[in-house]
Amino acid sequence: MRSHYCGQVDESLLDQEITLCGWVNRRRDHGGVIFIDLRDREGLVQVVFDPDRAEVFATAERVRNEYVLQVKGRVRRRPTGTTNDNLHSGQVEVLGLELTVLNAAETPPFQLDETGVGEEKRLTYRYIDLRRPEMQQRLQLRAKATGFMRRYLEENGFLDIETPMLTKATPEGARDYLVPSRTHPGSFFALPQSPQLFKQLLMMSGMDRYYQFARCFRDEDLRADRQPEFTQLDIETSFMHEEQIMGMVEAMIRDMFKTLLSVELPTQFPHMTYAEAMFRFGSDKPDLRIPLEFVDVSDLMKAVEFKVFAAPAKDPDSRVVALRLPNGSDLSRKEIDDYTAFVARYGAKGLAYIKINDLSAGLDGLQSPILKFLPEEVVKGILERTGAQTGDLIFFGADKAKVVNDAIGALRIKLGHDRQLLTSEWAALWVVDFPMFEWDEKEKRWAALHHPFTAPKCTPEELAANPGEALSIAYDMVLNGTEVGGGSVRIHRPEMQSAVFSLLGISAEEAEEKFGFLLNALKYGCPPHGGLAFGLDRLIMLMTGSQSIRDVMAFPKTQTAACPLTDAPAPVGMRQLRELNIRVKLPEKTSA
Amino acid sequence: MRSHYCGQVDESLLDQEITLCGWVNRRRDHGGVIFIDLRDREGLVQVVFDPDRAEVFATAERVRNEYVLQVKGRVRRRPTGTTNDNLHSGQVEVLGLELTVLNAAETPPFQLDETGVGEEKRLTYRYIDLRRPEMQQRLQLRAKATGFMRRYLEENGFLDIETPMLTKATPEGARDYLVPSRTHPGSFFALPQSPQLFKQLLMMSGMDRYYQFARCFRDEDLRADRQPEFTQLDIETSFMHEEQIMGMVEAMIRDMFKTLLSVELPTQFPHMTYAEAMFRFGSDKPDLRIPLEFVDVSDLMKAVEFKVFAAPAKDPDSRVVALRLPNGSDLSRKEIDDYTAFVARYGAKGLAYIKINDLSAGLDGLQSPILKFLPEEVVKGILERTGAQTGDLIFFGADKAKVVNDAIGALRIKLGHDRQLLTSEWAALWVVDFPMFEWDEKEKRWAALHHPFTAPKCTPEELAANPGEALSIAYDMVLNGTEVGGGSVRIHRPEMQSAVFSLLGISAEEAEEKFGFLLNALKYGCPPHGGLAFGLDRLIMLMTGSQSIRDVMAFPKTQTAACPLTDAPAPVGMRQLRELNIRVKLPEKTSA
Repeated sequence: MRSHYCGQVDESLLDQEITLCGWVNRRRDHGGVIFIDLRDREGLVQVVFDPDRAEVFATAERVRNEYVLQVKGRVRRRPTGTTNDNLHSGQVEVLGLELTVLNAAETPPFQLDETGVGEEKRLTYRYIDLRRPEMQQRLQLRAKATGFMRRYLEENGFLDIETPMLTKATPEGARDYLVPSRTHPGSFFALPQSPQLFKQLLMMSGMDRYYQFARCFRDEDLRADRQPEFTQLDIETSFMHEEQIMGMVEAMIRDMFKTLLSVELPTQFPHMTYAEAMFRFGSDKPDLRIPLEFVDVSDLMKAVEFKVFAAPAKDPDSRVVALRLPNGSDLSRKEIDDYTAFVARYGAKGLAYIKINDLSAGLDGLQSPILKFLPEEVVKGILERTGAQTGDLIFFGADKAKVVNDAIGALRIKLGHDRQLLTSEWAALWVVDFPMFEWDEKEKRWAALHHPFTAPKCTPEELAANPGEALSIAYDMVLNGTEVGGGSVRIHRPEMQSAVFSLLGISAEEAEEKFGFLLNALKYGCPPHGGLAFGLDRLIMLMTGSQSIRDVMAFPKTQTAACPLTDAPAPVGMRQLRELNIRVKLPEKTSA
Repeated sequence: MRSHYCGQVDESLLDQEITLCGWVNRRRDHGGVIFIDLRDREGLVQVVFDPDRAEVFATAERVRNEYVLQVKGRVRRRPTGTTNDNLHSGQVEVLGLELTVLNAAETPPFQLDETGVGEEKRLTYRYIDLRRPEMQQRLQLRAKATGFMRRYLEENGFLDIETPMLTKATPEGARDYLVPSRTHPGSFFALPQSPQLFKQLLMMSGMDRYYQFARCFRDEDLRADRQPEFTQLDIETSFMHEEQIMGMVEAMIRDMFKTLLSVELPTQFPHMTYAEAMFRFGSDKPDLRIPLEFVDVSDLMKAVEFKVFAAPAKDPDSRVVALRLPNGSDLSRKEIDDYTAFVARYGAKGLAYIKINDLSAGLDGLQSPILKFLPEEVVKGILERTGAQTGDLIFFGADKAKVVNDAIGALRIKLGHDRQLLTSEWAALWVVDFPMFEWDEKEKRWAALHHPFTAPKCTPEELAANPGEALSIAYDMVLNGTEVGGGSVRIHRPEMQSAVFSLLGISAEEAEEKFGFLLNALKYGCPPHGGLAFGLDRLIMLMTGSQSIRDVMAFPKTQTAACPLTDAPAPVGMRQLRELNIRVKLPEKTSA
């Protein structure tokens, strides 16, 4: 129905007759002439209707915003002074010769360039919201990115293989979405939280290299920027070491950033151990664009009388760190109070600081409520170790290690953005050498830091002897402080898998019941294998600079996991429930 | 870990040292030497272990079938007389220099080349079943085919966009799989039967061209070759006429067959109207490889006294057809009885026939139990119209049109295969001009032949005046008698959509409740649009010559919609059900 996209019209088409289809972005009447900005997926072009073509002009007069038009016209240069350098088509306009209204439109509930439209309204009228150029570009970039990664993986011998959506409940992990089975009364399928076990089974099937853009489901509370269904690029390979796996997918991401965003990521992403990342940044996904670092001063504080510092300094589960903010001594009382309130959200009970007003003036050049509690040599030690300069400010965190890491880690990020300290637009790294297990205080047992199929860097015997020290062959790709991908080499021997299950407090019977098919499969010739998964939504969010993953999904759910457009979820009829052998049982307070 | 795939080793690698990883397909000891056929995704290669390398030989001696090995060795020519022309690697062998057992294997529950293994067993040990070369090749072809179609569509400006899996129940159509919502007690999501409404909404969103390999779900009884979840290639475009849509996807299929199968499909697939397909083949998906055709003889039979023919001949809802089987007069009494039993499955009450033993002998040259009931001129008319020759046999169907079409249509297919009449390996066509509606005798109302969003070839007024005659702008692609794809131009104006809903007996209130968001969206600038969907599993089944769609899916369900590998579906705990506000209510006979 058209010869060109609106957004592609330019001087190369001068004097040609073309046919366009699109939406009325704006109509202006100016000097007896009608100007219509016609919009399609590729952009805008200005169409002009002269009154001397009476019939066409009359049609143009009755069109309104968001009408769908077909226009036949001739491309001509815009008069001097009326060009628009912000538009690809801005040097030209189309003189309208024929005009067909393909569809009318009522006044839309909001204008496309309207700001501050509530999210509920945007999602209710998503088909209008998605017409906005930024939404078009986000979904286009998403399609380009998945296409790029598919081609890369296929060129590297990876096969796109689909795994089931109707599958078995996940014994460990988040809450499952369940699907009642009609043919097996009282039984349920679960929607997959990830295709983890299936991709391992595909390796045992000799498929060698597998990938899939897999829809995954987690029925979690959506306080954070989460969605009930999300997409992961799932990758698994046999007969490759972890360095090769990391190198290959790192090259994929690097090539993609260069091709789609003209961004040069480093030739080799730095590798950092989990221990180092926690020690220096209080996070296993450090944002390396921010040039601020924890300086551990626990040893200096052990001997001081000031209990706030001394107690955590002496406790092996706690730590005391300093965070130097260059040129931070200009922070006002109010600003420091705000940061104190900020770290309190992460459990910090206060936020001590020292301002270095004049380093050359010794203690007199410092300003801090805690100075009086600290011996001079400790203060000196802090200044030396942090490399403090005149004009700097040093923050302190002293508490359980988790609280310090969370609170001062978050403060580090916030300061980086507030003070515009970012040293680059992009910073990528691999975090490696994760612990196999973390101790679950509540349950009084070891829990897998990744998942129970992750291979350790030691023998089953070493693992059993010292589970707290064991490291795993796991790796996370971190981009700008966000974990965009993560994976591991998997256990491929049944005795190691049994050893891990046993450490996790899973009895042989329970393991047999929940993972019997995996343990079985390991016995029949399982190759060494490993892989990883990228969170696609989050990756595209970073690539498009969006604030929420909802902005890179066509039809996301709200924070209460509902779709205001289609009104899902919704009640269903009794007959349907009866067929599924279930009935609704509302909680007391609702039904009473 | 390897330098080459086993299946890729050939004479180009002579005298080179290579490293292979794979599974022991077979081990033979012959003349003091050990031969191991090593297998990976790409094929087999023979590895030889000499006793003069004692350590390596000792390791080789203890390996068994399905052990996973890493072998370093030198490629050499096989001795004369021991080459194998069926293998890509058949001219060479690898002299084993180093050997590592990457994993041991117990004796598998079945051998890879074992025939007649039951499907339950195959699915329980799917990871072994999938190691079979034919399964590997099927999944590889599937991956190649989806990759090919993706690239084709992306080159044509189609964007891969994901639509939700947790969505609203389908008001029309098959039974939904439901997912209880935890955050909206008493409400349910449904898994999509197709992304139909979302892809239309994407057109209204200005996305212009969309595609997706979409997982779809139908909770139907699985008597036929169906799966609870299946994959469709879903395509939708704005501003294109049906001929352009058909032409574009037809070119995609043609290019794919040429590239992946070296099969040349015709430059333009023939178009056949629904009416013609039903008239000539009794089917809306005729298999044109079979050179047999219905010859309608209803007019000839109207006047005969033989009620079996005369009654349906006079009934407008019935028909009488002849099906000539060339050289069919050699069919035995037993064979004809079997065919009679076969058509009875489709509701036919008998299967009349005439054998033409000698055409030149007139009535005396014919042999048939029904000859005595038919006047000579009618018999003559039949012979002329069917073009009968000496040695032929003519079958008859006379009943309600549906019974005749089903029974004689199925007989046509069966005869084509039984008698090896197929004229080509592939036959593709488009079936077009479907009726908008069919009359539902049970419900006493019109039902949509495709779906209620299909555009008719007429105005809303013409549609209302004569719904039974209205044709839709729908099209099905038929390949070898299987509908591989189908679609339509959609309704893009609210008044037409309302007219169709009203004809389908959907009240304005009901339409508002079930499809309000669609009717709403049509008001705000909906472009003309249309599309189609291909059944991927069925298409790959045809392309690989598989007997079942289960053979082109990695992890299919059984006929009772269960997975014997993971034991899904399974009962879940009370706590989980309570969180979802549902409880199990087993049917009386089970719970009592």
